[in-house]
Amino acid sequence: MIIQLENNIKTTDLERLRNSLDAVQYQCTEVNTQFQKYIIGVGKKEFDIRAIGTLPGIQDIHRVSDAYKLVSKKWRVDDSIVDLGNDVKIGTNHFQIMAGPCSIESEAQIESTLAHLLENNIKIMRGGVYKPRSSPYSFRGLGQEGLVLWAKKAKEVGIKIITEVMMTDQIDAMLPYVDIFQVGARNSQNFNLLDALGKVDKPVMLKRGISGTINELLQAAEYIFSNGNEKIMLCERGIRSYETAYRNTLDINAIPILKEKSHLPVIVDPSHGIGLRKHVTSVAMAGVIAGADAVIMEVHSNPAKAFSDGQQTLDYSESKRAFKGLIDCYQLRERL
Amino acid sequence: MIIQLENNIKTTDLERLRNSLDAVQYQCTEVNTQFQKYIIGVGKKEFDIRAIGTLPGIQDIHRVSDAYKLVSKKWRVDDSIVDLGNDVKIGTNHFQIMAGPCSIESEAQIESTLAHLLENNIKIMRGGVYKPRSSPYSFRGLGQEGLVLWAKKAKEVGIKIITEVMMTDQIDAMLPYVDIFQVGARNSQNFNLLDALGKVDKPVMLKRGISGTINELLQAAEYIFSNGNEKIMLCERGIRSYETAYRNTLDINAIPILKEKSHLPVIVDPSHGIGLRKHVTSVAMAGVIAGADAVIMEVHSNPAKAFSDGQQTLDYSESKRAFKGLIDCYQLRERL
Amino acid sequence: MIIQLENNIKTTDLERLRNSLDAVQYQCTEVNTQFQKYIIGVGKKEFDIRAIGTLPGIQDIHRVSDAYKLVSKKWRVDDSIVDLGNDVKIGTNHFQIMAGPCSIESEAQIESTLAHLLENNIKIMRGGVYKPRSSPYSFRGLGQEGLVLWAKKAKEVGIKIITEVMMTDQIDAMLPYVDIFQVGARNSQNFNLLDALGKVDKPVMLKRGISGTINELLQAAEYIFSNGNEKIMLCERGIRSYETAYRNTLDINAIPILKEKSHLPVIVDPSHGIGLRKHVTSVAMAGVIAGADAVIMEVHSNPAKAFSDGQQTLDYSESKRAFKGLIDCYQLRERL
Amino acid sequence: MIIQLENNIKTTDLERLRNSLDAVQYQCTEVNTQFQKYIIGVGKKEFDIRAIGTLPGIQDIHRVSDAYKLVSKKWRVDDSIVDLGNDVKIGTNHFQIMAGPCSIESEAQIESTLAHLLENNIKIMRGGVYKPRSSPYSFRGLGQEGLVLWAKKAKEVGIKIITEVMMTDQIDAMLPYVDIFQVGARNSQNFNLLDALGKVDKPVMLKRGISGTINELLQAAEYIFSNGNEKIMLCERGIRSYETAYRNTLDINAIPILKEKSHLPVIVDPSHGIGLRKHVTSVAMAGVIAGADAVIMEVHSNPAKAFSDGQQTLDYSESKRAFKGLIDCYQLRERL
Repeated sequence: MIIQLENNIKTTDLERLRNSLDAVQYQCTEVNTQFQKYIIGVGKKEFDIRAIGTLPGIQDIHRVSDAYKLVSKKWRVDDSIVDLGNDVKIGTNHFQIMAGPCSIESEAQIESTLAHLLENNIKIMRGGVYKPRSSPYSFRGLGQEGLVLWAKKAKEVGIKIITEVMMTDQIDAMLPYVDIFQVGARNSQNFNLLDALGKVDKPVMLKRGISGTINELLQAAEYIFSNGNEKIMLCERGIRSYETAYRNTLDINAIPILKEKSHLPVIVDPSHGIGLRKHVTSVAMAGVIAGADAVIMEVHSNPAKAFSDGQQTLDYSESKRAFKGLIDCYQLRERL
Repeated sequence: MIIQLENNIKTTDLERLRNSLDAVQYQCTEVNTQFQKYIIGVGKKEFDIRAIGTLPGIQDIHRVSDAYKLVSKKWRVDDSIVDLGNDVKIGTNHFQIMAGPCSIESEAQIESTLAHLLENNIKIMRGGVYKPRSSPYSFRGLGQEGLVLWAKKAKEVGIKIITEVMMTDQIDAMLPYVDIFQVGARNSQNFNLLDALGKVDKPVMLKRGISGTINELLQAAEYIFSNGNEKIMLCERGIRSYETAYRNTLDINAIPILKEKSHLPVIVDPSHGIGLRKHVTSVAMAGVIAGADAVIMEVHSNPAKAFSDGQQTLDYSESKRAFKGLIDCYQLRERL
Repeated sequence: MIIQLENNIKTTDLERLRNSLDAVQYQCTEVNTQFQKYIIGVGKKEFDIRAIGTLPGIQDIHRVSDAYKLVSKKWRVDDSIVDLGNDVKIGTNHFQIMAGPCSIESEAQIESTLAHLLENNIKIMRGGVYKPRSSPYSFRGLGQEGLVLWAKKAKEVGIKIITEVMMTDQIDAMLPYVDIFQVGARNSQNFNLLDALGKVDKPVMLKRGISGTINELLQAAEYIFSNGNEKIMLCERGIRSYETAYRNTLDINAIPILKEKSHLPVIVDPSHGIGLRKHVTSVAMAGVIAGADAVIMEVHSNPAKAFSDGQQTLDYSESKRAFKGLIDCYQLRERL
Repeated sequence: MIIQLENNIKTTDLERLRNSLDAVQYQCTEVNTQFQKYIIGVGKKEFDIRAIGTLPGIQDIHRVSDAYKLVSKKWRVDDSIVDLGNDVKIGTNHFQIMAGPCSIESEAQIESTLAHLLENNIKIMRGGVYKPRSSPYSFRGLGQEGLVLWAKKAKEVGIKIITEVMMTDQIDAMLPYVDIFQVGARNSQNFNLLDALGKVDKPVMLKRGISGTINELLQAAEYIFSNGNEKIMLCERGIRSYETAYRNTLDINAIPILKEKSHLPVIVDPSHGIGLRKHVTSVAMAGVIAGADAVIMEVHSNPAKAFSDGQQTLDYSESKRAFKGLIDCYQLRERL
């Protein structure tokens, strides 16, 4: 049960509400986001919610039977739009492409990528400065220093940036520089990291776990929302299956289902979703037709020389064609 | 190694070829399809194929390193088109929709469906007369009698039909009535059935196994081709995964990969691929954008009353919109 | 609902029973096995079964809520034992080992294997004469001729044989020679084959599908039983997963669960279950400790030279040690 | 390549070694554990390692082709034993059982569990004080306070404790109290946590990821070892599959394979591995027969009233029988 409170609810009214819920053995969690106050009540007893709905300071009240509550579309039927400022928005009717290298490598690489994005009217650049790597002996990214340089360059040309955060200790230093925090597939159930990202006022793009269920993804998003941050986006990036002809199995089904179940924007990552350069564009377009609000994809001036795995990375001429195809697909979907 | 023979190759020349291959310890399989003669040579030794290529009666010779040979795009770079007659073709640049009920139920249902397809300019009707059912106590379809009735009605209005064959003993009786034999997911490695379907001159649509790999699907198609039937289509219908939010995981990646690896037409089945009526159209369109040459989907005048599971079945007004969206997607893909 | 009938129930009494079930809209299936007569009633209405239970000719009546009925332990609480004759039995308290090559290759190989089994007091020999192969160009076994030779040799020394049947057309010819028909993983939902095997009086060992669920395996067994053959054994042979460090994922959990849900004997196939020769014995013993009533494993005098894949095949000295370990595990389990 | 150094290697000799490796373009990582110094060299060039092997200060040198190095059995052929003190050791020939509740709940529960373990001669108690929970609204454990209380009680009776650590910030506070840090399945690729646990001198039990591969598990262990901590144990706890008849698919195959590939102790968790109370003992025994060096299982005085999910938890009389069976299986395995 979600109880939306007036932001200026009186302490005594809040107390009365809590008492009413205690009386029916509901466990209460108070949620204060950058936008609003809520009480989440979890309990089993059936009772007449109208008795509560008429208390002062209460805006609205909704029963939500899902395991996740605040991220469910059952109470918020209008889709949420994540606003990055400067008129860059992501969500229903606000389509975006995020493109860039797997890893941030150098000043020259940053400049080259930004120029490519500007030329193609792309508003958001992706790139890794902290890289999760299977082996401890692999390159783990340029870290905070790379981020500061990148953020400066991107800001100069008005491009937003998204990058992965891997641990709570990195959040404070990264906060002034990133426009979107990315939570990677391996951290999709790192609940302490989710808690911490719920406490900042900055958009978070949450990737589905390597074998995460749709329910787990939504419950992970609930961690962020219930800690106070409503600016969340969900990312389908392929799941692990038995098939070895490609890297991951892009779960195209997840896209319309996430859009049905949640009010949050849904993003498709075709680069990891198939992992084969020559087919990235096909499945990216499929993701858009199926309902994705944004695409995040890997682009590099020379994929074969990329620091991290370039197997799934488009070069500039391939990505130029891809961007056009994605926009066409989005426009077709909007017309249908 | 595939050796394309002149159809009028002399017996002595064929003998000489076999001897040359024996000499390098290649195991030979002679393949005679409705279109051409081939020798498939399987062996390990490296040798100069030009020595064979210049023998009389030999048209061309190709090395194919894949486990499958005749269905590979490595030797036949022009995509195969399956021609059903009356200008109904399936394959690259020849897009089709196949629609109809899970099970054929009655004369009235057949007539209603045909009228719906005609109205929407759909050329192929799907329907089951032999139904594979998990439980022995479930309805298993109207059988041959239903097929004969259906085929007559469909022929009258110029619509082609596709239906599942479950055992070799059914082939002879079904042959005069069906336009396309369907091999279901549970029979995708029923090698005797595949052998038998390779011996008739009728198109076959082969579904990927419930957890079949892309390689297994292509090797299953190789069974049909190597027995003499080149008219084969491959169907992606979703794979089994751990996710329970839907019925199967439509493997969107498989579509561009099958088109890359094989010259055979590729068909997407969104009804089984997601199994949720409200999302069938979204993933069907995604399949088309990703490269499918045809869509096969379930349509019923009243899905809730369908004999077999109607959970994934569109009604007439939903399917009307879906057909339009699919055509739009196909046209967009052709333009890109 | 399972209604056990007296074998000599009068036609009129049977008619009366059917009418009673019709009256509550229950669909009836009459099952006549080599042992008994049953009526399976499937319907939704709740009614007092005592009204039926007291009709003449009725032995007992059981509600079974599972999707499968006759193979469920809910009505037959005493485990079924499959009796192969000559005091060779399989099931609870009757442990057996089945061993032999992947493929029957030659008279010498048959004789060598039989001698090895005799020496180790193994009562059942496995071997393939019809081999399901992914590629149409691979060796498909010696066929009926090989079976006849093998059966003769085995009978001479009193060893039972189990071999795979791949299509209904093979059953009649094989029937006089085999002691147990094996249904392979790829045919585990070949419903016509299951129907046909239900019509013979010969034990059948049914393998779980490549990605078959436990429920599907039990429903497949129900096909055989409901067609009239109660002599069924279930075989866990590993499932397909994402892990590539071995061939299949032996589902050890399935063993106690199958023993809980069904009264049928459960057999473990460690050779396919892990597919790595050096670990076959470890997982075979694990299977026995977990409750398997028998083990089926591949043994060859020279695995490296086996016709079919010998990667998972033990040689004679390895298998000698394995047999001993399996018996020790069985004895320990019986004591616990 | 692993180069084992003399612990008292001179700085100049270390420098000379580094230069030799630089000369062949090998990237070097210096590893200093609680036991020894190593240099890990990663490079592609083939060169004669004897030139390096004879340098002063070098004890031994090994080529290891696996993606993981220090945890591989290719260089350390004698299995590692983790010594918890007071003669409690885990590893080959040192079998242990770890038992206790999912969550630490109260002083009374701690005392009751310790008494039960003492009575059955179990040396290690498991329990959660920080619980990873899918939903942010669920109980997350008693935290540090619970740990301190529990550790005190356990120490009084000479029982070791193992508990999950979820974030780097918890390590310092937990360090004086825990005997084994557990890394949970959801954190198996939380590389920062693994780095941090590599910097303490305390045993770590690392669980396989929810859909982790065997290779990923070993590479995760490599993170810990390469940061300086050799006291690592690997835990198989079931993987995610399509089967829904139980909670996870215990991967019995992983046990002998991990013992083959690594010198680290291997532990089986049957509670999560099947998730069904009535079958926990069967699969636990299977794990021991297959080669596990220890079993970790859930035990509670009243599973139905356990704070966290008690579906997979044995009560005291069930666990008493299980302990006995496990010891019997271990003894049988040792004899074989």
